[in-house]
Amino acid sequence: MQIPKGLEPMTPSTADALAAERSKSVFDVQEMNRFIVDDKMRTKIAKVEKVMAAEPEIFDVHNVYFMSRTEKMDHALKIGKRLIELMKAGAISADEISIADLVLDINGPFGLHRTMFIPTLENQGTAEQQERFLKPAQNYEILGCYAQTEIGHGSNVQGLETTCTFVPETDEFEVHMPNLRACKWWIGSLGVTATHAMVMAQLIVGGKSYGPNPVVVPIRSTADHMPLPGVTVGDLGPKFGFNTMDNGFLMLDRVRVPRSNLLQRYINVSREGRVTRPANVDPKVAYGTMVYVRTQIVSNMSQVLAKATTVAIRYTSMRRQFAGKADKPTERGAESPVLDYGMVQYRLIPLLAQNYAMFATSQAFSQHYTECMAELGRGNFGPLKELHATACGLKRWTSDAAIRGIDTCRHACGGHGFSQFSGLNEFYGNQYPNIIWEGDNYLLTQQTVRFLLKQIHALRAGKEVASNQTTQYLRRHLTAGRMAMVPPPQFVGRSIEALAQDPDAQLELLSFRAAAMASDLADQMEGGQTWNRSLVAMQRLCDAHSDYIVASYFRRHLSTLPAGSPLLPTLNKLASLLFLYVLEQHSSDLFRLPGRAAFSTAQVAEVERLLAEIIEDVREQAVPLVDAFGVSDMRLNSALARSDGKVYENYLQWAMEDPLNKDGSGPAIRKEWFKKYYEPVLHAADSKKLAKL
Amino acid sequence: MQIPKGLEPMTPSTADALAAERSKSVFDVQEMNRFIVDDKMRTKIAKVEKVMAAEPEIFDVHNVYFMSRTEKMDHALKIGKRLIELMKAGAISADEISIADLVLDINGPFGLHRTMFIPTLENQGTAEQQERFLKPAQNYEILGCYAQTEIGHGSNVQGLETTCTFVPETDEFEVHMPNLRACKWWIGSLGVTATHAMVMAQLIVGGKSYGPNPVVVPIRSTADHMPLPGVTVGDLGPKFGFNTMDNGFLMLDRVRVPRSNLLQRYINVSREGRVTRPANVDPKVAYGTMVYVRTQIVSNMSQVLAKATTVAIRYTSMRRQFAGKADKPTERGAESPVLDYGMVQYRLIPLLAQNYAMFATSQAFSQHYTECMAELGRGNFGPLKELHATACGLKRWTSDAAIRGIDTCRHACGGHGFSQFSGLNEFYGNQYPNIIWEGDNYLLTQQTVRFLLKQIHALRAGKEVASNQTTQYLRRHLTAGRMAMVPPPQFVGRSIEALAQDPDAQLELLSFRAAAMASDLADQMEGGQTWNRSLVAMQRLCDAHSDYIVASYFRRHLSTLPAGSPLLPTLNKLASLLFLYVLEQHSSDLFRLPGRAAFSTAQVAEVERLLAEIIEDVREQAVPLVDAFGVSDMRLNSALARSDGKVYENYLQWAMEDPLNKDGSGPAIRKEWFKKYYEPVLHAADSKKLAKL
Repeated sequence: MQIPKGLEPMTPSTADALAAERSKSVFDVQEMNRFIVDDKMRTKIAKVEKVMAAEPEIFDVHNVYFMSRTEKMDHALKIGKRLIELMKAGAISADEISIADLVLDINGPFGLHRTMFIPTLENQGTAEQQERFLKPAQNYEILGCYAQTEIGHGSNVQGLETTCTFVPETDEFEVHMPNLRACKWWIGSLGVTATHAMVMAQLIVGGKSYGPNPVVVPIRSTADHMPLPGVTVGDLGPKFGFNTMDNGFLMLDRVRVPRSNLLQRYINVSREGRVTRPANVDPKVAYGTMVYVRTQIVSNMSQVLAKATTVAIRYTSMRRQFAGKADKPTERGAESPVLDYGMVQYRLIPLLAQNYAMFATSQAFSQHYTECMAELGRGNFGPLKELHATACGLKRWTSDAAIRGIDTCRHACGGHGFSQFSGLNEFYGNQYPNIIWEGDNYLLTQQTVRFLLKQIHALRAGKEVASNQTTQYLRRHLTAGRMAMVPPPQFVGRSIEALAQDPDAQLELLSFRAAAMASDLADQMEGGQTWNRSLVAMQRLCDAHSDYIVASYFRRHLSTLPAGSPLLPTLNKLASLLFLYVLEQHSSDLFRLPGRAAFSTAQVAEVERLLAEIIEDVREQAVPLVDAFGVSDMRLNSALARSDGKVYENYLQWAMEDPLNKDGSGPAIRKEWFKKYYEPVLHAADSKKLAKL
Repeated sequence: MQIPKGLEPMTPSTADALAAERSKSVFDVQEMNRFIVDDKMRTKIAKVEKVMAAEPEIFDVHNVYFMSRTEKMDHALKIGKRLIELMKAGAISADEISIADLVLDINGPFGLHRTMFIPTLENQGTAEQQERFLKPAQNYEILGCYAQTEIGHGSNVQGLETTCTFVPETDEFEVHMPNLRACKWWIGSLGVTATHAMVMAQLIVGGKSYGPNPVVVPIRSTADHMPLPGVTVGDLGPKFGFNTMDNGFLMLDRVRVPRSNLLQRYINVSREGRVTRPANVDPKVAYGTMVYVRTQIVSNMSQVLAKATTVAIRYTSMRRQFAGKADKPTERGAESPVLDYGMVQYRLIPLLAQNYAMFATSQAFSQHYTECMAELGRGNFGPLKELHATACGLKRWTSDAAIRGIDTCRHACGGHGFSQFSGLNEFYGNQYPNIIWEGDNYLLTQQTVRFLLKQIHALRAGKEVASNQTTQYLRRHLTAGRMAMVPPPQFVGRSIEALAQDPDAQLELLSFRAAAMASDLADQMEGGQTWNRSLVAMQRLCDAHSDYIVASYFRRHLSTLPAGSPLLPTLNKLASLLFLYVLEQHSSDLFRLPGRAAFSTAQVAEVERLLAEIIEDVREQAVPLVDAFGVSDMRLNSALARSDGKVYENYLQWAMEDPLNKDGSGPAIRKEWFKKYYEPVLHAADSKKLAKL
């Protein structure tokens, strides 16, 4: 199949349109890239992309959109095996493999072995256990997974029903699932891959339960991969995305393992059945790991959203529809770029500001995390709770922004966004779990809000609270934990225009909003409102708190630039845009601010007017701003937004590669369908007459 | 593969939980079903489901989740062929075939032939053309598609670049795509199926352009389905959903067709090249068709959302997580149903109210449509514009609610919502185009708002406006098209509790909000704000108008019940719930109502409190309320929510049927992967030592 020859060129061409957008840049794109994307991340991505570009027969996944589930798994295994070889050969490091997942958007079946099985052994195994399990795991002589979630138990880990019962007679544990609800489910790398499962099970010794603990259970033979006796294991079937991963299920029917398979660093069961917990290990350290995982999600979400905004901003700057309706002149006879329309700008440009905020926040928060961990290392567990609360809020804020953002970008690409070749749909499905795992975004808010409420109760009770970024604003805006009578002068009575140019005032307003909402919720709960009835208000409070935290980290990262940096004018605009967007999206909160702080209708209208202006302004830099994310064509994997700007040419080319079209498979399938389906329908009556039409 | 024998029963079981929910019903579910679901629709669905249930070898599609794109197409063709046979045999009618698409969630490749190709011939073909094309089309001796959209032109139909040029020498038209941007794209039933395309092309006669007109172009041989000379045609590849349809692309390279292939009912080109438009046909009739299509979407969206709410409400009433945190006692030792948690209720119960409103609106609006069409038949085109504006608003409102609703339902099902077996993901992708096609939801608002603004400008200019549901409220709330000084007493100064029980006051408040926003936007545009700058405000105005229209149709349908109907207490609660939900979601609009109508902080807090109460109240009837939608297990196609309530049993059963697990394919694939990928990784070092582990 070939495009007809002799077609006229398209004028103006999409490639020219993209070049024109780039020529408008008021900053150096490379310099912006070096500032906004974390150094280490950028270096790793570049290295991994180079290694993969050298072996397109393995790493070129542009045809992933044509693959069935089984073909996807097959390709992911091929890639996974090659990455292990490259790692053993020293071409890439173990943690660079996760970068490969990010670049290719393919989460391979060896992933959980590295990210969950091995770290659990490192953190919770004794030296003897590390010798027995960790070393072979590091050599890939055994393949592991982490089996916690059950088909009937997700969020409520304490409610797990799998048991691990000590059998003193044989010095073993019997691991058992008493009913179907205890069936392990969703376990990554379990469906096809794992030879060993780290099973979270209720530890029972001498009839007494000690809560969920991890035990290593061999499930498949390393010799032939067949399930071991008592083990029923399989893949749990197709999912909305993430289909390169073999999420699996596992039923264990009274499977015995040696006593020494229970990880014993935090709990010890002796030969006699005595249960002890070593005194020299503080289990709070485990909190640090949870926070770390969420820190990683925050960082990943900036990269995830960057792919989507790059596709949508580039495409809508090249796509044209209707002439003369977008308040801007175009080339003679040309239609307007759809990014010039107010409604497209309103949907995409604030996403760009969020995306910059996320990159900046990720770097600033990561530094805060490192500082807290250093404190922990010195035995000071003080900062842990605030760190945990903030990490929960940021995980929710960033993953919500990223997942909704991909969806918004897809819709902004119109019909073509619906094609798999846009790159946004497969991506959406693959990234979607980020709002569910590591604490569902709706549940997670309770972690953040519980911390906020505790601080307020402490302040109200006149107790000491530790000083951190949260308590600092609560103390500043509240008097003994209650709303102060005099609202902060930094923003009250000032014009929105003045606020839009004053970062400190912006932070005061955002933190005041959060403090007021926190105090209000505390009042209501003191008045008898139950926790369950307060859940909706908690979502809003968590978002208000996180809006402040994000704005504050964004500004903190900008403050690391020298005062005269040529990047600052654009970055300050983005920060102000995000501020105004938060106000506009939550104008109801502003009307409700207490006392003189409450916004008037005129002020909210002014927010909307200024937001529209700054959106139009930033739109001019939109293409350079996404170019600065540095997302390669390999990573975009999108026909609509390749850096060469050849939208329609690439799109049609990919369509022609579809199995239904391409030489070989195409004609064969069509011939078969004609015989089976079309011919009997078309020729049910008299075929001769119709052949003439 | 088998579930281990001897498992304990799960207590309390999910099936028991569902039965308990059903036993709480305060109304007769069958009676509610007969009231809320349109009679004709219900009857057709029942008939089609019965016909299909008799042939499971063709119509059982529960394994669709395992299929590749090509397998899906194959299965859709098998179904499509069988439906044509059943229709020819008189078992079902032509329009019942679209019901089959709805029930199976499979849009087959013969669909556009019926819904676009044939109607276009009926409406725009002359008697002679109907003889030549319509009759064979009705007999399926030719297969058609409707080729309007081009790769470079979607919304802007006037900008299409395909040409249809009269060639007087041979009395033919030459249909041609001059450049790649003119390539027809997204055309349903074109990728593999169609033998004929109804091509929308710029009609050019004697060098003069007459705008887009439809011309019939044979593209594939009916004898062997091979593309005809000058035709490049293919499938446009995988999509986010709708993969049972062969959306295709088409390039025509100076293809000649007889002059009589141009549909000539609205435009005529004579042998001499004279172009005339018949006087006896009013092109406004075509508007009626557009409105009709949108009426159908409104009706479909109620059914679409019903499937999603049925899955989510049933599942969350059976799924349990955490004990004693949901303010309600449970059986001893049992966890709480997740539907008892405030945040789950807040997400799902308002959807249920929206869903009821959509079913009711669809019926009431359909009646309004029929009345307007009768007027049209009498030559009165007066009601057409308001009908069109309302239809655009309702298409946006209902498809937005349905698509967001499916997404909300999926997320409310937690991790299991992410499994294809939830039924919500494939469904989401298949239904997603409803927010894009027949006018993208963001563009469509302009149709509604343009009408509203015209009425206001007319009122301000002191001109006559036709009386209809829109102008009635504009006149009631505005004085000569401007905000009246005295806000309506029906709601001003009254408690929210009183409003929540007063349907008339609710409609007054909702229409006042829309009128105030319309007047405000008109003021701004008179003050010089451009159309492009007004687009964001237009979205909000369109939603406000539609919120009123939906509430008004909802109440209108309820008013058809006798006063003492046992259904009314529940239905009135749903209508009040929707009212409070609209207020709560748009509280910023309430703060901004003009003058004394503006809400206070206390009033908005009262809205929130009452909404939470009514949500908790309606939650008790949630399962009977979704049962009343009458969605069969066949249509749900969900392991999580079958009417038998056996959630985990069904879910695991389906997983075991996955090609990676089931006897035959499962072991074969696993063996191959072990040899290719796992063995080389596991046994890279010394395999003997590890086999012992």
